[in-house]
Amino acid sequence: MTEVKIKRLDTADADFASQLDRLLAWNESEDADIHQRVIEIIGRIRREGDAALVELTSRFDNFVVDDAGALELPRDALEAAWQALPPEQAEALREAAERIRAYAERQKLESWDYREADGTLLGQQITPLDRVGLYVPGGKAAYPSSVLMNAVPAKVAGVPELVMVVPAPRGELNALVLAAAYISGVDRVFRIGGAQAVAALAYGTETVPRVDKIVGPGNIYVATAKKLVFGQVGIDMVAGPSEILVISDGRTDPDWIAMDLFSQAEHDEDAQSILISPDAAHLDSVQASIERLLPGMERAEVIRVSLERRGGMILVEDLEQAAAVANRIAPEHLELSVENPEILVRSIRNAGAIFMGRYTAEALGDYCAGPNHVLPTSGTARFSSPLGVYDFQKRSSLIYCSADGADQLGRTASLLAWGEGLGAHARSAEYRIRHR
Amino acid sequence: MTEVKIKRLDTADADFASQLDRLLAWNESEDADIHQRVIEIIGRIRREGDAALVELTSRFDNFVVDDAGALELPRDALEAAWQALPPEQAEALREAAERIRAYAERQKLESWDYREADGTLLGQQITPLDRVGLYVPGGKAAYPSSVLMNAVPAKVAGVPELVMVVPAPRGELNALVLAAAYISGVDRVFRIGGAQAVAALAYGTETVPRVDKIVGPGNIYVATAKKLVFGQVGIDMVAGPSEILVISDGRTDPDWIAMDLFSQAEHDEDAQSILISPDAAHLDSVQASIERLLPGMERAEVIRVSLERRGGMILVEDLEQAAAVANRIAPEHLELSVENPEILVRSIRNAGAIFMGRYTAEALGDYCAGPNHVLPTSGTARFSSPLGVYDFQKRSSLIYCSADGADQLGRTASLLAWGEGLGAHARSAEYRIRHR
Repeated sequence: MTEVKIKRLDTADADFASQLDRLLAWNESEDADIHQRVIEIIGRIRREGDAALVELTSRFDNFVVDDAGALELPRDALEAAWQALPPEQAEALREAAERIRAYAERQKLESWDYREADGTLLGQQITPLDRVGLYVPGGKAAYPSSVLMNAVPAKVAGVPELVMVVPAPRGELNALVLAAAYISGVDRVFRIGGAQAVAALAYGTETVPRVDKIVGPGNIYVATAKKLVFGQVGIDMVAGPSEILVISDGRTDPDWIAMDLFSQAEHDEDAQSILISPDAAHLDSVQASIERLLPGMERAEVIRVSLERRGGMILVEDLEQAAAVANRIAPEHLELSVENPEILVRSIRNAGAIFMGRYTAEALGDYCAGPNHVLPTSGTARFSSPLGVYDFQKRSSLIYCSADGADQLGRTASLLAWGEGLGAHARSAEYRIRHR
Repeated sequence: MTEVKIKRLDTADADFASQLDRLLAWNESEDADIHQRVIEIIGRIRREGDAALVELTSRFDNFVVDDAGALELPRDALEAAWQALPPEQAEALREAAERIRAYAERQKLESWDYREADGTLLGQQITPLDRVGLYVPGGKAAYPSSVLMNAVPAKVAGVPELVMVVPAPRGELNALVLAAAYISGVDRVFRIGGAQAVAALAYGTETVPRVDKIVGPGNIYVATAKKLVFGQVGIDMVAGPSEILVISDGRTDPDWIAMDLFSQAEHDEDAQSILISPDAAHLDSVQASIERLLPGMERAEVIRVSLERRGGMILVEDLEQAAAVANRIAPEHLELSVENPEILVRSIRNAGAIFMGRYTAEALGDYCAGPNHVLPTSGTARFSSPLGVYDFQKRSSLIYCSADGADQLGRTASLLAWGEGLGAHARSAEYRIRHR
């Protein structure tokens, strides 16, 4: 039983705000060196296409192929992986996919329009994206759940072609990842990764088709590449380390809370787990649970480093103050481990996903509850939303003026256009005015 | 009557696809020099705050103030500008604002939830962003309509604090811009612009508050800065030159079409106006109208350069082929100047706004039809949408498991978590399983 040094903060401290800022500070490695290398990789893929893709995949993934066509996984490999799964795992994957699909169906945007008195029609037409690229991390962090969470909403949106990329170190792929791709309806899979995969999807090569949007998490090279190709294609979000914030009223089993904090911390050493409570004794109990449970964990060392580097426990006056701190943090995952979460949730403005009540472990949301586990990180829940069906749909405004409508609107538009010094705008509107 | 050299394309040509690619090619000035200067400006604002903001505003806008507080426009200046407007202009602005508001109200996202048989609740909570920054271009291109289009949807979404920035060359501002800010409910206005204004909004200074999202168009410095601060704050989109694509069945008055093309071309020399028709004689008629009407235009030289540099006329087989070309182009503005636009519109997948029928001049949409004029450019309508109320709202997923639900979901999550090698995830789910 060794001590785990987790920072303690107290909102009553005069410099709490700056302590919190330091706790949250995340140096989003704007590493000029990585930036430059990614620019070069993107440039090579644009200029040399397949040849560069083959060479870079050989260099970074130790996956050597004779020609780019061999980077694509044969179509029957997905079904074969699915068929080979132990029935229990297949059933779990299928249940997760079905729940994700059921929730996604509720998010689907529908076209609408309305007519004004003079016959003018206004509306919004919704269409799916034509082609989407899914980035799935490979190697040590092979997450089939990530495939489900990205692919299922895209298919619910009606995207006709889903192109998955996943790095295959030395050619190896995770069978669960392939099985997940199969049941979620992925159309094509390329065994490529890193900045080169992002560039290939954004610009296309002879073999990899150009997509309209790239979604899915990745390492710093992937994140940097996504940021750089944004504009050429859409991207979902720039994902940072995973975070959990637990608000506990002090009456949840401290072991449960400790394990919920571990479940975030085990992702990687930069993951952030924070507990807030108005009950100081409860913070101590959770600390004790952490120290007792840690040695039994498979990933004990990663958890320890994460908790000591970025973890925190914050003592607050009451639950309303806890909500205010949560809104300041804007966490990716927020657990409201309290008696009446349906009341506290009304005070929450900034959070990716909110896990309400003592029974709702964040891990349920990671896999199978239904809502997406691709969530805004690093405080971006201030302005962005979970990945959803809406990310694979787009809107076109519809304007269909009647002759009467064009006459009336034309007068207003003409006046405003002359006010902005735009004569062609004004005249183009005036042509549609009835000349009485 | 001078000749205007507009490129002609024909889908029947063997190399039509590459001709079209060349016509659309837009070198999104990834000018390394500008990129570096913008990085430096952002760095200075982050390090030096107000002091840098005052110095850069003096240098770039010739607007000299003693201290940063003086960069903020006094609150009563907005109302004063509104009161001083000629009644006719005030009425036009008010009508435009009301129509934009009425359309925006229809876009508002609402929270929802549903309960499953075992009592588990799933849902989505919608909240407005806390604070939004609006970039409004100043100087020669002072567009009050831009203020309405950005501010009104934000206010409809319920954003409590809207902070507008507008460069004020030598301290001068456009009275219409201020009046538009007044009626659309802008809360604060700072007379700053360029990359320094974007950086100030993204990171905050002693005087300028940090926002959660920055919207609004700007020049290459503004666009580059927005791209660089994306992640720290949300941004709307990276706007390129304005574009119009007109599909005509050949029976719309050629003068009308010519003026619609002019209305895009007069924005700037990089704007793009393209006409598609299955009727070769009609293309000739529009060409003749262009040559006859051009000399009478206020901005004739800008229009000429734009049309000759980036304009085009495309002959197609039929209207369905026209729709296919439109989907390839994914234009910001698309006019369907045809007899039955309600049929053709069903073939359109990629377009920011669709103007249906001969009476619906694109200029009506720029000012007062209701739908937003902030639209995806440079082909980004393939994956993005018009600015709307939804850009000022965000979603939080809600998961509230009953004890029964946690038991069932816990079993599935545990299985999948062990499959991913994440023991803390698995145990955190297992704690909520009933141990029978």
